[in-house]
Amino acid sequence: MADGDARDRRRPRVVIVGSGFGGLACARRLNRQPVDVILLDQHNYHLFTPLLYQVATGLLNPADIAYPLRAVFRHSPNVRFRQATVTGVHLGGKTVRVRGGPAVPYDYLVLASGSTDNYFGNQEIARVSLGLKALADATGLRNHVLTCLERADAEVNPDVRRALLTFVMVGGGPTGVECSGALAELMQIVAGKDYHQISRSEIRIVLVEGLPRLLSAFSEHLGRYAQRVLERRGVEVRTRVLVKAADEEGVTLSDGTAIPCQTIVWSAGVRPNDPGGIPSLPRFRNARIKVDGRLRIPGFDGAWAIGDLASPEVGADGQLPMLSPPAMQAGRYVARAIVDRVRGATEERGPFHYVDKGTMATIGRNAGVTHLPGGLEFTGFVGWLTWLFVHVYYLIGFRNRVSALASWAWDYLRHDRPIRIILATGVEPEPNGSIIRSSTGKMG
Amino acid sequence: MADGDARDRRRPRVVIVGSGFGGLACARRLNRQPVDVILLDQHNYHLFTPLLYQVATGLLNPADIAYPLRAVFRHSPNVRFRQATVTGVHLGGKTVRVRGGPAVPYDYLVLASGSTDNYFGNQEIARVSLGLKALADATGLRNHVLTCLERADAEVNPDVRRALLTFVMVGGGPTGVECSGALAELMQIVAGKDYHQISRSEIRIVLVEGLPRLLSAFSEHLGRYAQRVLERRGVEVRTRVLVKAADEEGVTLSDGTAIPCQTIVWSAGVRPNDPGGIPSLPRFRNARIKVDGRLRIPGFDGAWAIGDLASPEVGADGQLPMLSPPAMQAGRYVARAIVDRVRGATEERGPFHYVDKGTMATIGRNAGVTHLPGGLEFTGFVGWLTWLFVHVYYLIGFRNRVSALASWAWDYLRHDRPIRIILATGVEPEPNGSIIRSSTGKMG
Repeated sequence: MADGDARDRRRPRVVIVGSGFGGLACARRLNRQPVDVILLDQHNYHLFTPLLYQVATGLLNPADIAYPLRAVFRHSPNVRFRQATVTGVHLGGKTVRVRGGPAVPYDYLVLASGSTDNYFGNQEIARVSLGLKALADATGLRNHVLTCLERADAEVNPDVRRALLTFVMVGGGPTGVECSGALAELMQIVAGKDYHQISRSEIRIVLVEGLPRLLSAFSEHLGRYAQRVLERRGVEVRTRVLVKAADEEGVTLSDGTAIPCQTIVWSAGVRPNDPGGIPSLPRFRNARIKVDGRLRIPGFDGAWAIGDLASPEVGADGQLPMLSPPAMQAGRYVARAIVDRVRGATEERGPFHYVDKGTMATIGRNAGVTHLPGGLEFTGFVGWLTWLFVHVYYLIGFRNRVSALASWAWDYLRHDRPIRIILATGVEPEPNGSIIRSSTGKMG
Repeated sequence: MADGDARDRRRPRVVIVGSGFGGLACARRLNRQPVDVILLDQHNYHLFTPLLYQVATGLLNPADIAYPLRAVFRHSPNVRFRQATVTGVHLGGKTVRVRGGPAVPYDYLVLASGSTDNYFGNQEIARVSLGLKALADATGLRNHVLTCLERADAEVNPDVRRALLTFVMVGGGPTGVECSGALAELMQIVAGKDYHQISRSEIRIVLVEGLPRLLSAFSEHLGRYAQRVLERRGVEVRTRVLVKAADEEGVTLSDGTAIPCQTIVWSAGVRPNDPGGIPSLPRFRNARIKVDGRLRIPGFDGAWAIGDLASPEVGADGQLPMLSPPAMQAGRYVARAIVDRVRGATEERGPFHYVDKGTMATIGRNAGVTHLPGGLEFTGFVGWLTWLFVHVYYLIGFRNRVSALASWAWDYLRHDRPIRIILATGVEPEPNGSIIRSSTGKMG
């Protein structure tokens, strides 16, 4: 204890919970600063979530978008990664509880535990849907989609066949748009070719969105463009409808339509991934922690919350978008604030200010949408190229960039999706039964 | 039924069970021949098993060594792949039973279902060991080894630490030698660097072999060379001992030595992967089916068995080696024999004759052993280069070759193992408990 105290006095300890875009940016900014940093995450890699759908559709390898955190900080003298599941945070006692180990004390805490799928309390939809937030979700979805094709190829019952070949994507944000575009491309590649008994016209991809248009975070022009491109590529876009119910047989929409299907991909909402143990704090309606303008957790000295987990009030009850750029900017802002504190800066840093550098999404081959601040917009090939370069730039690691670029070039030139292996779990789905939950997150 | 009969008379149907080296070679040779071929496998890919250990040690992606079978036969007019688990073969009725579907009738049958780990009846060793025969084994072993390192890095109890950092490989054949060499290299790369709390000297890799030397299928010279190289790289080689018992705490050897460990990799024996339903046939002592000199299953017309599953008698009770070259040669031989039959050849093809073109193994960086028929042998850099080119040549698919070569170049030049992600199962191991079976075959 005396030892620990002595060391603590020498170098304050920063504990960062979560190694997503926010936590990682914070940890990197604290590299070689006069603090000891412990970065905690349940996974041993930083996940480049914007490309998860490309793993799910057989274009990239899992390792292309997952970078080992220990490799990031291999040469760092003061940042240490530790794989641990955080079970709770004790803000009063300044400790973080982890599964199967002693609590980790901190001087400064950065909560950056991100978000998770939100099924808005509908357990039944949650049970039969596949998410797309974690790496195991993406490999699980790949296995699931390919298994549907394998089954359908051998199936003679037309109803079973139709359900196996119907893919419902719920949520018309970037994830839903990109995933359904990529799925349509995959089907174009394999239907009638690898799967001789399946024709493209039998395959139905339905994208369901509750709002009047897709990509509501973008301009109306870009949303309409995305819809046109998707429809041209064979995706059925249904706006102004919600998923009312779902089970092993399929989904029922709010307008009464029943769609028999074996695949439901959920990207219609996220909620903060609360680390637990946090006392009742001011929250937004979507459960994000309401931090102050300097991203501090109100009432607890030395504790910040950033990224999808938290937001300051922006304007009248507005929030920061749940995207990677605000998370990264917030991570770096908090790192600087901590260094200020440690160095005993006399003047306090001004409030956090998010600089919107633009948003973008791709609908597949040669078609992307890019929105820049000031209203500048690109669509089509230019939008797609912009998307490509920005994503390669932000991918971490030289090897991952080269590998992703090589895969994209291969896909572009050869119209091929190379990674079409079903990596089995050992747990086999029931023969001929519903496979709607057969492959969730258990395979790779 | 009438339809089926008509078609059957037009084009005889060949059913091939298993898409390993033997089954795949047979199917490829039957491409564009006057037969309908159905290739059955429980997985949707051909697995290049000689490189499994490189997936297990973070050097290659699973997709680098697994090639989708539907892509192999995409342009074939007569070979069709079907993913199915074969539950039995009815040689009298000429049908193959598959899980969850109607039985598949055949005119000609090629059994090529390979082999599986043989624990010689010791259930306890089987329960706590990790195999290295399937793709999920390799990803499971990668997850397991990295989890051991994560745990050890945070562990203070010296006994627990030692067990987490002790890796026992059972079996001194090519798999055991290659895997322990690759594991030693991985440890050299990460110990003290990625895992700051772990020094290379704490890590113990033990290779156990019952015979007096390693690589008994090679010459004594090559076996001694492999042992020297492994020992120089920090592997403890123990010959003339067997694993007597194993449990969650570790292994006990036949000389009484107890080795506490959390990782036991088994490559000390294989047995034929019997498809089931086969009547009592002549068998070798190791349970391989004893086929005649033309690889036919005695007593059943139009049925062959090849590869690890079967062997003709070679010399006095000798067998073909359980390696890929005899399996491939046998696959092609049987394909030709089937075409002879279908074409109504009057003269019967001579018995199968295996042409030994050499055997090889690598011990890692710059060190390989190659044995050529006639007694020519290479070791060291030349042996390693030979190994490398032969393996690239036999890897299926242009992309897989380029990708594997790129990974090897990266590893060679940068001393790095890029694929070090622990892709979680969702099923978490017990905190602080034994993790000896935590990651078997369920992750990717």
